[in-house]
Amino acid sequence: MHKSLVIVAGGSGRRMGSMIPKQFLSLAGKPVLMHTIQRFLDYDKHIRVILVLPIDQVSYWDKLCIQHNFTARHKIAVGGETRYQSVRNGFKFVEKDSLTGIHDGVRPLVSPLVIANCYEQAELHGSAIPCISVNETVRQVDKKGSRVVNRENLKLIQTPQVFQYELLENALRQEYSEDFTDDATVVEAAGYTVNLTNGNPENIKITTPADLKLAEFYLSL
Amino acid sequence: MHKSLVIVAGGSGRRMGSMIPKQFLSLAGKPVLMHTIQRFLDYDKHIRVILVLPIDQVSYWDKLCIQHNFTARHKIAVGGETRYQSVRNGFKFVEKDSLTGIHDGVRPLVSPLVIANCYEQAELHGSAIPCISVNETVRQVDKKGSRVVNRENLKLIQTPQVFQYELLENALRQEYSEDFTDDATVVEAAGYTVNLTNGNPENIKITTPADLKLAEFYLSL
Repeated sequence: MHKSLVIVAGGSGRRMGSMIPKQFLSLAGKPVLMHTIQRFLDYDKHIRVILVLPIDQVSYWDKLCIQHNFTARHKIAVGGETRYQSVRNGFKFVEKDSLTGIHDGVRPLVSPLVIANCYEQAELHGSAIPCISVNETVRQVDKKGSRVVNRENLKLIQTPQVFQYELLENALRQEYSEDFTDDATVVEAAGYTVNLTNGNPENIKITTPADLKLAEFYLSL
Repeated sequence: MHKSLVIVAGGSGRRMGSMIPKQFLSLAGKPVLMHTIQRFLDYDKHIRVILVLPIDQVSYWDKLCIQHNFTARHKIAVGGETRYQSVRNGFKFVEKDSLTGIHDGVRPLVSPLVIANCYEQAELHGSAIPCISVNETVRQVDKKGSRVVNRENLKLIQTPQVFQYELLENALRQEYSEDFTDDATVVEAAGYTVNLTNGNPENIKITTPADLKLAEFYLSL
């Protein structure tokens, strides 16, 4: 089955204390986003990659691609006001009936195994949402105080979130809602149930300078 | 105010794929436990440290201390069947009325700031439980499927959990319950509310070989 990937990379550099948006920061010598894209091309060199970028970042990305001789073919889509709108804009370039992943641009450390498994599971079950367990005691805080909740039932959600084309097509017809925290919630809001599968602990989202260092460390292993 | 610390180090090496209990494994040249103890001595060289070890690990620890010339004064208490019992055994050596922290032996990366803050907050409020926020989308899983929960209200709990003497003394008089997942829950079961404060993200619990590598990395920063 044809496979597609929408990479959402709408972040700014603010939390990094940097003018350069975090997805462009250098990780082991090349921009975070190039690592991310490469991981999926290593999985399937025919995967159709659509990179969603804020309009004012497109020419900068083009320059980086020339500079790093990053000739990996990918389409550029222009980001929207919300993540939901960005995914919608990217989805327009997805080939009809292809199995479609949606991935955070700032997660360059997703493992090859997790990518393969998410696409396989989504083909079988409609969707695949990678997640990992929680290793610490968890408390839920409210106005009155806090109480321990059973961590065995909690999962930390990652990307790529992979879906059959029709599911995603239907889900992306909905009006935007503030409850759309990730793509799984969009698909659920359209009436589908989502299927959880294994993520990898190193698949962190790079949002702070400490995360960037941690990512360098993981890449060095 | 006098300060005490009960370090609970009852783990085996099983999850590490090692015969050596994880608290004794070498981290940047010395056993994990020595890093842990040293962090607290750096905070207050007069802190009374009580190390709770399984009976069959005591002589091995003694050897390690000689080998590493680790002359830091600490008492040894013998571990019990459960963490609760181990804490109870350690607490017998705590000086009356001292502010008492309970810490996991396999958390050598607690920051000096977090240690200081926990003891200060406990002196003011009775207890201090360090915790960090959750950075990923969280789902709660049940038989029917899963649903997103508001991660803003969730906290990941760490140690040192620090308490005023009387609170802990009263709490440790209780019969053991399976609900005692950490020391905060023991204190709550005795009718007190606990006070959450800031932990540090690097304050991981070393339970796998990957954790040990990560800890080496954090120490190298």
